[in-house]
Amino acid sequence: MTTMENPLRNGVDTATLFATLDAVKGNTEIAKFQFRATNRWVSGTHNQSTIHGFYGAMQEMTHGQAFTFDADHPAVLVGADNGPTPVEYVLHALAACLTSGLANIAAARGVNLTEVTSTVEGDIDLCGILGLSDDVRNGFSGIKVSFRLRGDDPDKLRQVIEQSRQRSAVFDVVTNGVPVSIEVDAG
Amino acid sequence: MTTMENPLRNGVDTATLFATLDAVKGNTEIAKFQFRATNRWVSGTHNQSTIHGFYGAMQEMTHGQAFTFDADHPAVLVGADNGPTPVEYVLHALAACLTSGLANIAAARGVNLTEVTSTVEGDIDLCGILGLSDDVRNGFSGIKVSFRLRGDDPDKLRQVIEQSRQRSAVFDVVTNGVPVSIEVDAG
Repeated sequence: MTTMENPLRNGVDTATLFATLDAVKGNTEIAKFQFRATNRWVSGTHNQSTIHGFYGAMQEMTHGQAFTFDADHPAVLVGADNGPTPVEYVLHALAACLTSGLANIAAARGVNLTEVTSTVEGDIDLCGILGLSDDVRNGFSGIKVSFRLRGDDPDKLRQVIEQSRQRSAVFDVVTNGVPVSIEVDAG
Repeated sequence: MTTMENPLRNGVDTATLFATLDAVKGNTEIAKFQFRATNRWVSGTHNQSTIHGFYGAMQEMTHGQAFTFDADHPAVLVGADNGPTPVEYVLHALAACLTSGLANIAAARGVNLTEVTSTVEGDIDLCGILGLSDDVRNGFSGIKVSFRLRGDDPDKLRQVIEQSRQRSAVFDVVTNGVPVSIEVDAG
């Protein structure tokens, strides 16, 4: 059995991965998660998010530490450049989700990886968010992801990428959209 | 004129903001941007993105520093918890974009802010990404953003949030989706 031959293929604990799949098959409540971020405005376009707690596996959980991230606009967009722009975090999330997924999928299929790098490019016409054109959308007009993979047989590597695309949470969110509700306590 | 009375309302340089708007009105090429992230797989579900260069204002530009971010899965999802999950970065990006936008919009309208905090919650059933149900999508089923604003008149603050929603790049991406192409060099 593959998991016995190489329990840590690509750094993935495949035995635990398969055990987790079996556990969810036995009780799908385990799979219902809620992820969260809290954000605090600092000044101008600079703000900071904290990511710590989440719900999953039928209980409140936390990451081992609270992660904090600054977002801002660069000087050319009248910010103080204390962090990436919010849209750049979306590109990072997309690359990260596809990459985490393909590492898991490769391990599950017994495919070895030696290198995975990617570049994500998102084109955006700021006439949208600046309110200067009703014909231009606010967000990216398109995103291109370019992967370089090395490891086992190229055909197997391409199949792993394709399966990761088909099962990526962020790829789904970014390509298909999600309903978002906004509540406001304005005092 | 508002910009003369208070050139740094909410920490926003409104004079430069209005000058940038005027410059884009004069030449919309200035508004065509491309943002980028590069990602490198580390091990298992752990990978790291770098955000540095971008194109905008008709030239290649860089942030003042290269920003790096780790993504991983928590232990309950068979990862090593070296960073937030990719989907949590999407929640952060959404909060950050709405918050950066409302600070700019409030400043442009002469509305003072004293406090802006938000919590973003994204519900996701992992039966989708685990391939255990064809009826469950891979991404969030829904996202809820809860804002708390303090500053000037509550009605004005609510109008600022509404305008930010209408002109947010990440809100547009997350609610409406974007075409994503994936290219693969598999060796």
